[in-house]
Amino acid sequence: MKSGLNFLIAAKRCEIDALRQLSLTSALVNVTGRLVHGLQRERGLTNLFLGSQGTRFAEPRRQQITECQATEAELRRCFDSLDTQAAHLGHGARLFSRIAYVLHGLDALPALRERIDTQVWTARDTTEAFVRLIAGLLAVVFEAADSASDPAISRQLVALFNFMQGKEFAGQERAAGSALFASGRADSAGQQRLLHLIDSQERCLQVFKEFASDELATLWATADRDTVDARAELERLRRVLCTAADGSPLDANQSQPWFDCCSLRMDRMKTVEDRLADSLQRLCEHKTQAALTELLAFEGIHPVAVQPDDALSFFHDPVPDHVSGTSPAQAYGVQLDRSILDLVQDQARRLQAVSDELDTVRASLNERKLVERAKGLLMAHRNLSEAEAHKTLRQMAMNQNRRLIDVAEAVLSMAEVLPERRR
Amino acid sequence: MKSGLNFLIAAKRCEIDALRQLSLTSALVNVTGRLVHGLQRERGLTNLFLGSQGTRFAEPRRQQITECQATEAELRRCFDSLDTQAAHLGHGARLFSRIAYVLHGLDALPALRERIDTQVWTARDTTEAFVRLIAGLLAVVFEAADSASDPAISRQLVALFNFMQGKEFAGQERAAGSALFASGRADSAGQQRLLHLIDSQERCLQVFKEFASDELATLWATADRDTVDARAELERLRRVLCTAADGSPLDANQSQPWFDCCSLRMDRMKTVEDRLADSLQRLCEHKTQAALTELLAFEGIHPVAVQPDDALSFFHDPVPDHVSGTSPAQAYGVQLDRSILDLVQDQARRLQAVSDELDTVRASLNERKLVERAKGLLMAHRNLSEAEAHKTLRQMAMNQNRRLIDVAEAVLSMAEVLPERRR
Repeated sequence: MKSGLNFLIAAKRCEIDALRQLSLTSALVNVTGRLVHGLQRERGLTNLFLGSQGTRFAEPRRQQITECQATEAELRRCFDSLDTQAAHLGHGARLFSRIAYVLHGLDALPALRERIDTQVWTARDTTEAFVRLIAGLLAVVFEAADSASDPAISRQLVALFNFMQGKEFAGQERAAGSALFASGRADSAGQQRLLHLIDSQERCLQVFKEFASDELATLWATADRDTVDARAELERLRRVLCTAADGSPLDANQSQPWFDCCSLRMDRMKTVEDRLADSLQRLCEHKTQAALTELLAFEGIHPVAVQPDDALSFFHDPVPDHVSGTSPAQAYGVQLDRSILDLVQDQARRLQAVSDELDTVRASLNERKLVERAKGLLMAHRNLSEAEAHKTLRQMAMNQNRRLIDVAEAVLSMAEVLPERRR
Repeated sequence: MKSGLNFLIAAKRCEIDALRQLSLTSALVNVTGRLVHGLQRERGLTNLFLGSQGTRFAEPRRQQITECQATEAELRRCFDSLDTQAAHLGHGARLFSRIAYVLHGLDALPALRERIDTQVWTARDTTEAFVRLIAGLLAVVFEAADSASDPAISRQLVALFNFMQGKEFAGQERAAGSALFASGRADSAGQQRLLHLIDSQERCLQVFKEFASDELATLWATADRDTVDARAELERLRRVLCTAADGSPLDANQSQPWFDCCSLRMDRMKTVEDRLADSLQRLCEHKTQAALTELLAFEGIHPVAVQPDDALSFFHDPVPDHVSGTSPAQAYGVQLDRSILDLVQDQARRLQAVSDELDTVRASLNERKLVERAKGLLMAHRNLSEAEAHKTLRQMAMNQNRRLIDVAEAVLSMAEVLPERRR
């Protein structure tokens, strides 16, 4: 018959299993980030290629595709190595479901590239296609952040996810700005989209700053400061793009400097992202190691035979002499029942604190969840496709000059008075 | 290399694993409920036994102990059958940690009973001891409710937990009232405690009504109505107990009718609780079966070779033709890539909806979590034991005539201005 000590150990094993899964997940997040970066570059080069009617950028694009294919193969191996037979992962079903979606997107990439080779698809359509695939990849990172069972790791994943999402907004800004310059004419819809992307980007970076370690937040601030010239140029071009009167001419020659300084910014972001991913990996290993050490200490405990009087201590008030300290398990190889009870209560208290902190960290992911929920509502009630629903929300936000999350909240609070779905 | 379909299936397998664990958990909850009921009876009989200086109730108490020992053995077997090696359970660590605590309490029961046999412990101390052990058992049920991955099952578990918790408050009310009658004298502290227990009980039953199925909510309402005489008698005795002036005499002969009508109420509650537990078990089986059927349908899919044009459908808007309907997987043994993509998107959308609904259901468990957090804060900052912290909160609630949750929230919002912990 299993004892309290057995279950104390079992609980620790559960924690270790969850941490090991987090190590796997963070490796997955790392490769996903590299593929996202590759696809962002490919999207940029594809836009330039299509913008030049296929006369330029064919070679850099081809090279980028080769690189993307290598990273894609690596990511597919990563997916394969996830144990799909076992449901060890906390939110396994959701993660696997996101992966299934991404795999469909990756399967469709060769056909998309063919359409681009033959210039059958427009720059606008291909941009949308890349945006959708990258959104699918980011959703994998989001699930990882949402399912992490350790608050410190969860914080890092939230920081990383927001940084990656911010970088993707920067990538979309590059594409939107390039399209505006290439068209040679300012139009207010394009300008509004640009402003929206800049705003979304900044909010993501704000969340990143809140959740990243001081070291990494500083790294990004420094990277941003060290390239003050490039930043000034970016801001100048942003101003040119956003303040030109509707219909007034834009200098198509600015297209290249715009692309270059946007790309420089994204490359700098990638450096910080790599450091974030590294530090996440190390944190997972460190936490797993620490938990393993504690497990060994627990397993080394040989409880002395329980005396009835000792057992009764369950009904007395424990002295909380190590409420905030580290576990005393390491100190004793042999423990009285009283001390094991202390360990059990410590563990329960710590797990409760962990769960409370996780709730707080996860709340920061709510913005995205609210937007998704509002989209779902629009799809169901207005019979819209996902893309239409997203566009509707974005349009409402632009028209009302409000943030996407505010519009999403308004939509959700209107849920009860929305008309029935038309069939 | 694994395909989107593989991960669609893997996600379904995760769901099934989680549902199977829920079946195990709900069996565990069932036995836990029976042991709680047995211990509540033992607590009642022990109070009568001690109140009569050991001259009466020795035999019924002995019989009740035998029954409790049998249920305890069953629960220990249930614990043993949980796979402690694998961390399949979502919140495994927390559940195992609660079980470890309960096992310490069960180990201490024989010593407690011995102290009662020899009348070394007072009625008050033994009541507190039983209250603590039962609270540990209810915490196991709470974790089960908090970790359920299916909203319908989670709702039932929330209903069941609140019903069990309400029944425990009823049991504590019986003990508190018995103690008052036995003392032969009204005292305002005891009266306040009684009022508090009645209030807590009613709030638990309110949550139960919100979350139980109509059928079970009606079952309880009917049970309550059918025994209107007993209820009237309970209310009369409650009035006698609560309105007597501080220090005025109470008729000790009322002790037996009070005990009887409280016991009748608890037995009626047990009938409803059993039905709840049964219905939970059936729901788990039904859900598992439905998911297995869907899995079989998914596994029967033989995707036809993907044509490039079909793959491109990833980048087009899906027609949400079965957003709210059932999965069409059963309809086809062979599917085009387009249809599998639809299944993948359906799954993702459904899992998102499930997760949103779970958040809502779990929010109802927040009251308890807030109280626990406030207790933890008091323990850390004021150097209190858990029991002292709980008593402090309860006392604050009584003095300020506020609900426990309101006091807990006030304490938490004061966290930043609380003095440093004295060491």
